[in-house]
Amino acid sequence: MNLYSVIMAGGSGVRFWPQSRRHRPKQLLNIVGEKTMIRATVDRIAPVTPFDRMMVVTGTHHAENILKQIPEIPESSIVAEPVSRNTAPCVALAAYKLDKNDPDAVMVVLPADHLITKEDEFRSVLEAATKLAFDTEDLLAFGIVPDRAETGYGYIHVGAKITEFNGLKAHRVERFVEKPDIKTAQSYLKLGNYLWNSGMFIWKASSIIKAIERYLPVVAKAMEKLYPALNTPDEAKALKLVYEELPDISIDYGVMERADNVLVIPIDVGWNDVGSWTSLQDVWNTDEEGNAVKGKILSLNAKGCVVSSPQKLTALVGVEDIIVVDTPDAILVCRKDRAQDIKQLQQLLKDHGYQGLL
Amino acid sequence: MNLYSVIMAGGSGVRFWPQSRRHRPKQLLNIVGEKTMIRATVDRIAPVTPFDRMMVVTGTHHAENILKQIPEIPESSIVAEPVSRNTAPCVALAAYKLDKNDPDAVMVVLPADHLITKEDEFRSVLEAATKLAFDTEDLLAFGIVPDRAETGYGYIHVGAKITEFNGLKAHRVERFVEKPDIKTAQSYLKLGNYLWNSGMFIWKASSIIKAIERYLPVVAKAMEKLYPALNTPDEAKALKLVYEELPDISIDYGVMERADNVLVIPIDVGWNDVGSWTSLQDVWNTDEEGNAVKGKILSLNAKGCVVSSPQKLTALVGVEDIIVVDTPDAILVCRKDRAQDIKQLQQLLKDHGYQGLL
Repeated sequence: MNLYSVIMAGGSGVRFWPQSRRHRPKQLLNIVGEKTMIRATVDRIAPVTPFDRMMVVTGTHHAENILKQIPEIPESSIVAEPVSRNTAPCVALAAYKLDKNDPDAVMVVLPADHLITKEDEFRSVLEAATKLAFDTEDLLAFGIVPDRAETGYGYIHVGAKITEFNGLKAHRVERFVEKPDIKTAQSYLKLGNYLWNSGMFIWKASSIIKAIERYLPVVAKAMEKLYPALNTPDEAKALKLVYEELPDISIDYGVMERADNVLVIPIDVGWNDVGSWTSLQDVWNTDEEGNAVKGKILSLNAKGCVVSSPQKLTALVGVEDIIVVDTPDAILVCRKDRAQDIKQLQQLLKDHGYQGLL
Repeated sequence: MNLYSVIMAGGSGVRFWPQSRRHRPKQLLNIVGEKTMIRATVDRIAPVTPFDRMMVVTGTHHAENILKQIPEIPESSIVAEPVSRNTAPCVALAAYKLDKNDPDAVMVVLPADHLITKEDEFRSVLEAATKLAFDTEDLLAFGIVPDRAETGYGYIHVGAKITEFNGLKAHRVERFVEKPDIKTAQSYLKLGNYLWNSGMFIWKASSIIKAIERYLPVVAKAMEKLYPALNTPDEAKALKLVYEELPDISIDYGVMERADNVLVIPIDVGWNDVGSWTSLQDVWNTDEEGNAVKGKILSLNAKGCVVSSPQKLTALVGVEDIIVVDTPDAILVCRKDRAQDIKQLQQLLKDHGYQGLL
């Protein structure tokens, strides 16, 4: 029984513009600490899955930069998707590749750009979950015990039935639910049987392949076509022929919400998806006025701001709930409750001839 | 009869931080157009008072930079105040200096850092006013015909009595009034007999000297003490001995509000005092959403902002009525209705060890 980690590093991170750019997505930024997010993810998991049992799935144009971040990893373990097709094709590809080499492979699927502060705890749960995944055909999701009424995450409604396995408690999943409004989020927090969907999963490669065959037959068929080329020098060429036609679908929507053998393991490991500038309010240190800052600020009655200004002093006068991001060639000033609109700047930049700032 | 211009360039311009600094006050910035404000002021007045009939009064540490801006002016015409003492001592010093050389001198007093767009009109009025000032002992103020209910300016309440002189209409002044609240400003606009106090004046040097002797005897006494040294190589040394003890008082408060021979000439010359970042909303071009911009912005539902970002693209998302100023070593993000608080940053910068950014 071997555990492999599959790190999904396909994100473009447009929500972190202007710090993130087309060729410098979020996973390659050191938004949280000193390390880039992908390096932190790799270092966190390395004690459990050594470098030769890691796989990183990313876009063609990020492969080189990711290899620079993780020089310890075999180059063949950086899998480059010719086009981005959401998480289902990515997970499928990893599963078929691992299963071809090791039919007993257990794989943990991890986004490359999330934060976990209680690393030891995370790794212990992971080791216990590995055994459960190996001994069953269940698909295991990690659900985060919420500490606030968060509207930015999807939730998992936990069922009553509990599986106990070597001290690990796993619950049947009642259903996956979309990002709620604030009232619903508050009721979820009160009820106590809702967990945040972390996007982290663990299962045998063979188990998820079975589920893909059943719920995403188009994806399964494409993978069977690819199969002979997987883990061979022909793989990249084969991916190019097949990938374009794969459906753009998430593993959550494509498999997890439909399958009947899904369990969720509640964990409390200091997790944050670092999904937008706003999320840094819960990650960076804040001053007495609730301003979260990377760099230096001078505040005159400023409250609840998020400022990334590593090069210059930023003086804030009277402003509240504003995001300020300074970079060498672009500045962002954004209302915090409009952080989701930052994505729209991509089109605006194109329309106004600022391709160089994408 | 000779007209001399006296340009008051003593301002520190802390309200334009971070673009203005201790050694780069507002009058040395090109906030409005391509030229620095003092250069624009000099060029505007040069057709009426050639360079050898100009005098610039400034602080010791700005004299060199001002001379660089106006190399055509005789070095001796840059008068350096050892300490800043508001406009009354400044005007007195200029008057005594001019009167010593030319007892018939008429002087126009102009702040170095205001904007006038209708320059020809301004110069015509000036020439007519010069004659009026020469023929009488009246103290003439220029009052701006308001085009909006502005709360940022002092007003002059115009009396009914009119002096007509060579086609120029000058009104007796009823009183000078402080910056009004918005309701009062609206009533002033409706009433029509209130003008903005521009801080521009014209009079014979001998006329203002008489008024200073009467209303500011302490200042007059100091000037008499200085008198032998004025316009000699000993002047700077003498100023150092005397200036510290001069009262810190404006010519408006010290003389104009008290004298009974004050007239006001209504003018409509596209004047703006450019007193704060907010005032640029009326000076710079604005986009459809009312954003006034120097540099490049990308706006996603941003409204009523003032942005100075000549080096970088500034993207605004959802923000309204915000001032954003980028400079090579500091950024300001300020609520527009808190622009007056920018002054307070000076102390905050000192307190937090940012002396280099003052």
